[in-house]
Amino acid sequence: MTTSRPHGRAPASLRPIRITRGYTKHAEGSVLVEFGDTKVLCTASVEERVPPHQKGSGEGWVTAEYGMLPRSTHTRSAREAAKGKQSGRTQEIQRLIGRSLRCVFDLKVLGERTITLDCDVLQADGGTRTASITGAFVAAADAVNGLIAAGKIPASPIRDQVAAVSVGILAGTPLLDLEYVEDSACDTDMNVVMTGAGGFVELQGTAEGAAFSHAEMLQLVSLAEAGIRRLVELQKAALAGTPGQAVEG
Amino acid sequence: MTTSRPHGRAPASLRPIRITRGYTKHAEGSVLVEFGDTKVLCTASVEERVPPHQKGSGEGWVTAEYGMLPRSTHTRSAREAAKGKQSGRTQEIQRLIGRSLRCVFDLKVLGERTITLDCDVLQADGGTRTASITGAFVAAADAVNGLIAAGKIPASPIRDQVAAVSVGILAGTPLLDLEYVEDSACDTDMNVVMTGAGGFVELQGTAEGAAFSHAEMLQLVSLAEAGIRRLVELQKAALAGTPGQAVEG
Amino acid sequence: MTTSRPHGRAPASLRPIRITRGYTKHAEGSVLVEFGDTKVLCTASVEERVPPHQKGSGEGWVTAEYGMLPRSTHTRSAREAAKGKQSGRTQEIQRLIGRSLRCVFDLKVLGERTITLDCDVLQADGGTRTASITGAFVAAADAVNGLIAAGKIPASPIRDQVAAVSVGILAGTPLLDLEYVEDSACDTDMNVVMTGAGGFVELQGTAEGAAFSHAEMLQLVSLAEAGIRRLVELQKAALAGTPGQAVEG
Amino acid sequence: MTTSRPHGRAPASLRPIRITRGYTKHAEGSVLVEFGDTKVLCTASVEERVPPHQKGSGEGWVTAEYGMLPRSTHTRSAREAAKGKQSGRTQEIQRLIGRSLRCVFDLKVLGERTITLDCDVLQADGGTRTASITGAFVAAADAVNGLIAAGKIPASPIRDQVAAVSVGILAGTPLLDLEYVEDSACDTDMNVVMTGAGGFVELQGTAEGAAFSHAEMLQLVSLAEAGIRRLVELQKAALAGTPGQAVEG
Amino acid sequence: MTTSRPHGRAPASLRPIRITRGYTKHAEGSVLVEFGDTKVLCTASVEERVPPHQKGSGEGWVTAEYGMLPRSTHTRSAREAAKGKQSGRTQEIQRLIGRSLRCVFDLKVLGERTITLDCDVLQADGGTRTASITGAFVAAADAVNGLIAAGKIPASPIRDQVAAVSVGILAGTPLLDLEYVEDSACDTDMNVVMTGAGGFVELQGTAEGAAFSHAEMLQLVSLAEAGIRRLVELQKAALAGTPGQAVEG
Amino acid sequence: MTTSRPHGRAPASLRPIRITRGYTKHAEGSVLVEFGDTKVLCTASVEERVPPHQKGSGEGWVTAEYGMLPRSTHTRSAREAAKGKQSGRTQEIQRLIGRSLRCVFDLKVLGERTITLDCDVLQADGGTRTASITGAFVAAADAVNGLIAAGKIPASPIRDQVAAVSVGILAGTPLLDLEYVEDSACDTDMNVVMTGAGGFVELQGTAEGAAFSHAEMLQLVSLAEAGIRRLVELQKAALAGTPGQAVEG
Repeated sequence: MTTSRPHGRAPASLRPIRITRGYTKHAEGSVLVEFGDTKVLCTASVEERVPPHQKGSGEGWVTAEYGMLPRSTHTRSAREAAKGKQSGRTQEIQRLIGRSLRCVFDLKVLGERTITLDCDVLQADGGTRTASITGAFVAAADAVNGLIAAGKIPASPIRDQVAAVSVGILAGTPLLDLEYVEDSACDTDMNVVMTGAGGFVELQGTAEGAAFSHAEMLQLVSLAEAGIRRLVELQKAALAGTPGQAVEG
Repeated sequence: MTTSRPHGRAPASLRPIRITRGYTKHAEGSVLVEFGDTKVLCTASVEERVPPHQKGSGEGWVTAEYGMLPRSTHTRSAREAAKGKQSGRTQEIQRLIGRSLRCVFDLKVLGERTITLDCDVLQADGGTRTASITGAFVAAADAVNGLIAAGKIPASPIRDQVAAVSVGILAGTPLLDLEYVEDSACDTDMNVVMTGAGGFVELQGTAEGAAFSHAEMLQLVSLAEAGIRRLVELQKAALAGTPGQAVEG
Repeated sequence: MTTSRPHGRAPASLRPIRITRGYTKHAEGSVLVEFGDTKVLCTASVEERVPPHQKGSGEGWVTAEYGMLPRSTHTRSAREAAKGKQSGRTQEIQRLIGRSLRCVFDLKVLGERTITLDCDVLQADGGTRTASITGAFVAAADAVNGLIAAGKIPASPIRDQVAAVSVGILAGTPLLDLEYVEDSACDTDMNVVMTGAGGFVELQGTAEGAAFSHAEMLQLVSLAEAGIRRLVELQKAALAGTPGQAVEG
Repeated sequence: MTTSRPHGRAPASLRPIRITRGYTKHAEGSVLVEFGDTKVLCTASVEERVPPHQKGSGEGWVTAEYGMLPRSTHTRSAREAAKGKQSGRTQEIQRLIGRSLRCVFDLKVLGERTITLDCDVLQADGGTRTASITGAFVAAADAVNGLIAAGKIPASPIRDQVAAVSVGILAGTPLLDLEYVEDSACDTDMNVVMTGAGGFVELQGTAEGAAFSHAEMLQLVSLAEAGIRRLVELQKAALAGTPGQAVEG
Repeated sequence: MTTSRPHGRAPASLRPIRITRGYTKHAEGSVLVEFGDTKVLCTASVEERVPPHQKGSGEGWVTAEYGMLPRSTHTRSAREAAKGKQSGRTQEIQRLIGRSLRCVFDLKVLGERTITLDCDVLQADGGTRTASITGAFVAAADAVNGLIAAGKIPASPIRDQVAAVSVGILAGTPLLDLEYVEDSACDTDMNVVMTGAGGFVELQGTAEGAAFSHAEMLQLVSLAEAGIRRLVELQKAALAGTPGQAVEG
Repeated sequence: MTTSRPHGRAPASLRPIRITRGYTKHAEGSVLVEFGDTKVLCTASVEERVPPHQKGSGEGWVTAEYGMLPRSTHTRSAREAAKGKQSGRTQEIQRLIGRSLRCVFDLKVLGERTITLDCDVLQADGGTRTASITGAFVAAADAVNGLIAAGKIPASPIRDQVAAVSVGILAGTPLLDLEYVEDSACDTDMNVVMTGAGGFVELQGTAEGAAFSHAEMLQLVSLAEAGIRRLVELQKAALAGTPGQAVEG
């Protein structure tokens, strides 16, 4: 039996990906990343201070915050600023983005400054956390290039690229880069974060309903590896391109 | 003495204005409004319920929420969701937007449903509250048109248009539609909200530094009246145009 | 058609005003201000420190906080301390009081200290924010006189008086100094803050229901100007009088 | 050795006490109670609903809230509404006032309605909690009389009076009704709440510094018993008097 | 008439008491205290810093925090960390524990460090606050002994023991050390905190329902005095014993 | 090169495991689970209501809350109830426990009731989340058995067992069931949750420092599979045993 995906997409295909650098003007890095209809604005802000746990260490810090605009979703979700707290889901995602980015940073080389990656979802259609990581890397790279150009750091603290994709099993078929209708329906859902060199940074698989087998796990991981290789190429193309012009793939 | 404005703008000129309907796909109304480099995403969400104070009244409700993305500003400002509360400024602005929109709505005709206008600033360069009101009206109109098309309401509850602009006095010269560098430097700052028919909805003048005179007040109000007439025309053009295509003026 | 006001008051008349200095004993300035049945206790507290944004600037700070006792109103309103947050209305009002007072202060002359004006409503009958500004000025003046008497500052940082009044249109008639039943019923409501010299500090007009015209706006402003001139005289008389003895007008 | 008290007061004397009924106009009961320079506004509000734990029980509820105006104290204390929470001390005191009042109420006779006693300290000079209880009883009695007059309840749910006083040991001498300077200096501090019939409702003794002996405890209790007898008489006189006219003793 | 107590306990008897030192491994003092089925884990943590109000004073600080595990009670109570605030009852109890412990400490001798006593109720059956005080003293003593052994302080800052017990009147009979079913049913409830030398530290009597008489008060105090003498002996035995081995009585 | 583990443990060995049912008396299920020095009290509470999203669905709900006693850790960590919010880590863990348990529950068979699993860490030494899941399953099973015994549900809603363990790579060697010193030092850390039948419920691998390879991932997963098989046996033995008696392995 074959599951047919929206827009006739093949099981192992990514959605159309677009990466637009220089999307807003104030941030040191500003990237609109689109995975199909999922659109996330990722900005990188550089501040010449570090959180208390890094003070005096000579090391910098890289951290992330995540938010969804109230009507980025099918039905309006309450504004977290109005409710007075971030949901557990929001905190989980922003901690994941922060850890993923730190994994490719040499904080010693960055020096005692902080890069904050704000990932704000303008429109959600599944995969907002993986799009955020993929776009945040590009924004961070732009911020780092600015520091180098300004002579504030002698070399890049970025050791490798980092990108992420979701995979899942729907009606027995492993699928790459789930969009919302697939994500809601699927039995198993896995988010994979990898470096440009192909190492794992995060691997988070969750059974929705039935548990998943060792064999299924291996299939999902392979699918994710291929998807991330493609995302890494697109990041590279975006960073080689011109701010304001989208790179698509 | 003449003050020269950025980009050679005349004292009584608006910045380039762009109104793009259908900017995101989930909301019943979704408008990107741009006043020069100020960019605000205004979405209108319709929900088939009303807040407690309207329950059983047969009347609907129109309300607004406002937020700035952390890096919409020159230097990063703390995320309100992370701080756990909205600032006094945020609350003041969202109350102003809500009152302004309600002023042109017949809540009886709307029926027991709520339209929430979320105004999220993607990029800030002065005048975010006036851009929000101007854009939110267009998003609200799209949401209302959807309700009519769906046969949920027999006629439009919108009695008139509403738009807003800022004016101020800088070094003795009254200026229309202040951008950030002007806003920070000016002595008096006034936000004016008016209907399409030319009535005042809100008039908020504040002395920054020295108090302002009766004569100055009159000058500022005239300048605002002219600016709002132009914004009202642009709203009309946008609503007559095609979603996805920006109307500029 | 004539609207008759409660207690046979003329449209252009203030309510009976009473200003009592030295109302409580601990504060550097302590004033009970009464606009008819509206009673607000305004205290001025001097502290030898400034908020972070003024540190090292050589300048002082003037700020305000506002609160209503739970049963200052017709029906009991929830205690904000128990709810764990101040309402948007409370924040709006205390920001307005603070800005209004700062407008007549030379913060350089005040030196690195803070004057906090606490305006607590003991009984509410309309116009609590305008009474607060009018009373807070007198409390601030007493605190400043104390600083001069103690030799802490060589001259007064107060450049002018500041007072406030509300005006509105009820059934077509412009009215000065609205009391609660008028405020709830009126179509347009304006709060005006002016200096002793007759300059505008704040002008906040709001349409309740229908928008208001340019002509109506001008009528309201004139009415407010006259009312404030009278309040400024009463402030002067109070400051010339004896603490503990009410000045009435 | 004799300790001399401020104003030449005898160790077993109360401060001048004043009870003024009808102090503000909206509340069902409104009493200004003064123990020397301690001034507390106690209002009683009647609401025709009960908290969840009493719903459907046929019984009413009596509860209290307590607050200090920021500048009721020698140095300004932070506004709890602005801090976003009530201190442990505030909660302890308002729980004590609530329990004390409930002890003399027959909640069955009150019926399914709530009396909320708001005790707001306008000026503090020691003994704010005991003054609050003493004044709140009078406010509650006025509210109950209103309910009877309105025919809402057939008989009074109040079974007895309740009043409170502090006692302490300063330099070996037991003192009645401590004012602030005594309270700060004393070794042992006890708050006693009693009914008109002389029964104990609350007895809270705390050693400040050294522990206190059985004999000292007995001395303090006797002193409090005498003081409360006098307060009970003054409450009776106040309730027999005219609203707006202070009863003093 | 005789009230029979659960397990045939005599009115003047304590429940079986067990004190187990060294219950967990990380804390400087860790004691499981059991009063019958009430089980509280009391840990003492030493930190080389003091709160702001003690900074530079040369004195240390002793403080307490209290919590109940959500299912320590008959029906599950909401987790305070999830609700986002501690109840008034929790704050009252932890303030009581802190004051009680400080009463036997010479903060000068402790030096500028803080001992925090965490009292967490694993199982509740009445008397959690009195068990907490009794156990916290033993944990504090262990922490102090560690400081002396480490040469950080030359002598013990502990001047005396401190222990606590509840007493109450049920159907006319005074009872020592109330368990839950007795506590819920009793008319008067008193918590007494005393030193080893027999001085009172805290005395908190509350009428539940009817007020209590002077004679009843005296009976209750005597009963408590006897109970605390026994608890003081058990604390002494525990401190003389071996960590990990319970002392029972 | 060989890494030697504390207590001479082999790389593929669990720490000594102890499961004690019936640890406290009030909860429907109460289990102390020990993985070496990590001790977590897991209680299951049954309530005859469901959260809003399940109301009227005919289905029940299973959820979890997690907390650490302030001094369960090497140095005291701030009490979350006092700070007023749960950390992101706490929320992440309690969401993981809840999802893991729900995965083996048939919520239809449970009926419209909620089982809340409270996992409170008494002593922490690494692996608190995996111990929590393993212990919570046993507590849930006891609660379910109680519901069956009481005739409230006809059959068990539990479809399979669920248990969890951590694995990691330290200096190149894959290790099972990390204790604190290992966890802090290791390069890669993975938490695995599996059913009794050997299916994956959750797989969460995180690179600490360098990314991990496909081969390392496979090694870690195998190690976890073996560990969980052993934990599943111990759960079975515990459920077959006597409450109050620890099962060890």
